[in-house]
Amino acid sequence: MKTVLSGRGAPAEIDREGPAVMIGERINPTGHKKMAQALKDRSFDYIRELALAQVEAGAAILDVNVGIPGADEPALLPEVLRLVSSWVEVPLCIDSNNPLALAAGLAAVEGKPLVNSVNGEEERLSSILPIVRDRGAAVIGLTMDDRGIPEDAETRLAIAERILERAAKLGIPAEDVLIDPLVLTVGANQQAGRVTLQTIERLRRELGVNINVGASNVSFGLPERTIINQAFLALCIGAGANCAITDPAKLASTVLACNLLQGHDAYGRRYIRHIRRLQETQRP
Amino acid sequence: MKTVLSGRGAPAEIDREGPAVMIGERINPTGHKKMAQALKDRSFDYIRELALAQVEAGAAILDVNVGIPGADEPALLPEVLRLVSSWVEVPLCIDSNNPLALAAGLAAVEGKPLVNSVNGEEERLSSILPIVRDRGAAVIGLTMDDRGIPEDAETRLAIAERILERAAKLGIPAEDVLIDPLVLTVGANQQAGRVTLQTIERLRRELGVNINVGASNVSFGLPERTIINQAFLALCIGAGANCAITDPAKLASTVLACNLLQGHDAYGRRYIRHIRRLQETQRP
Repeated sequence: MKTVLSGRGAPAEIDREGPAVMIGERINPTGHKKMAQALKDRSFDYIRELALAQVEAGAAILDVNVGIPGADEPALLPEVLRLVSSWVEVPLCIDSNNPLALAAGLAAVEGKPLVNSVNGEEERLSSILPIVRDRGAAVIGLTMDDRGIPEDAETRLAIAERILERAAKLGIPAEDVLIDPLVLTVGANQQAGRVTLQTIERLRRELGVNINVGASNVSFGLPERTIINQAFLALCIGAGANCAITDPAKLASTVLACNLLQGHDAYGRRYIRHIRRLQETQRP
Repeated sequence: MKTVLSGRGAPAEIDREGPAVMIGERINPTGHKKMAQALKDRSFDYIRELALAQVEAGAAILDVNVGIPGADEPALLPEVLRLVSSWVEVPLCIDSNNPLALAAGLAAVEGKPLVNSVNGEEERLSSILPIVRDRGAAVIGLTMDDRGIPEDAETRLAIAERILERAAKLGIPAEDVLIDPLVLTVGANQQAGRVTLQTIERLRRELGVNINVGASNVSFGLPERTIINQAFLALCIGAGANCAITDPAKLASTVLACNLLQGHDAYGRRYIRHIRRLQETQRP
């Protein structure tokens, strides 16, 4: 099972039998005042910095979300996507709750982008899957629906199956649907991590799909969040996730270490190159 | 499957369905000049410091190895074990290649200690298992034999089965044998991590035993070893290991984060207490 995405440059592959890849999550104003202000002021230099830094840190794909209150997303999203495409060659992940913005975004980029996201809600399935299909894009499918995020792996799996079925009916192949099992904070519910890990194992074993995880929600409200996020990401990759939407500055070392440890990095070449780059950057 | 060990104080449980526990590895002169010198000089204050610091950092069990060239191990090991027992209450892991030293060590401590280690070599099996049985101790079984460490999971599993069978014949139950699948550095062999992870999965699924891992060899010769060791430990725990012989100062946070993420730490109480203690220690 291979999800192949492309931007202006070389394609990015998310391969069930290959190394885990990172989607850089930083171009997103949610809970991020400086980014929200930059979007409001149309001062795109900051976004450029984040785009370049994330690719340099190892992101194979960049997520782009411009959802600030009052923004004209169907106009702003394609504008920012075009800018990001002019700065970096990697495939983009077009991130919005607004189907019109997604459609406009899909029209604005080259290659084969990823759409973030659809879920099990009927309204999302019927509004978003057709535009993904028409554009020949790939899509992230979140295992939640109108009733929220299920507390058990069984129901999350059923939602994943529903998303895959609906996609297949429209002619979107399973390799173009990345399932995201979602995770809640373990600070509020001690079973939250376990349920997500179980969902990943079952998605991998029973559905054979490629799996994306967001590795930062899990630690919400807890101290030293990076330690938890690193451990969680390793556990997710071990369970079968092969894509992570994350901050590469914080988690690239963990992802590259996992790839090395799972036999996807001959002689540790990629890991060693990454560490050398970090050491050079940190040198005074 | 529960391995229950004890020292002077409360027992330590290694429970197949419970959190991962740490064996502190620092009291060992191998590749550690300061410790070797302290043992030669009989200056035991340094060993006391390491014993207390490791328990404070979260070690549930302490490994004690005094193997320096020229030492009279059958005399020195029980002496150091008695000292360590006077400083800390946790169970001890008696670590030696010398069966006479192991026997003397086993006679020197209270409770139910762990012996480190037996492996698939006939000579080790026949010399060490009887003294483990006679003392009612538990033992670590390494998946290697006269031919070295097998390159594949299949052969490692066969050695684990042989160790368990030989133990059972003598009346040592499976819960008193911790299997250690061993790991070589991924710097030399890119499949080294993968084979160990596969061995852990199969040991867990097919034999149902408790599993110990050493999480530092894997990164030998590579830069930023702690990052690799942290990722490897999380991958091992995810695959089913529930005991790690390690330096708690470097890896306790990862182990506690994994326990939290696997649903073994209600409200993150143990994780939060650990982080607060670290933060207090680091404050000027």
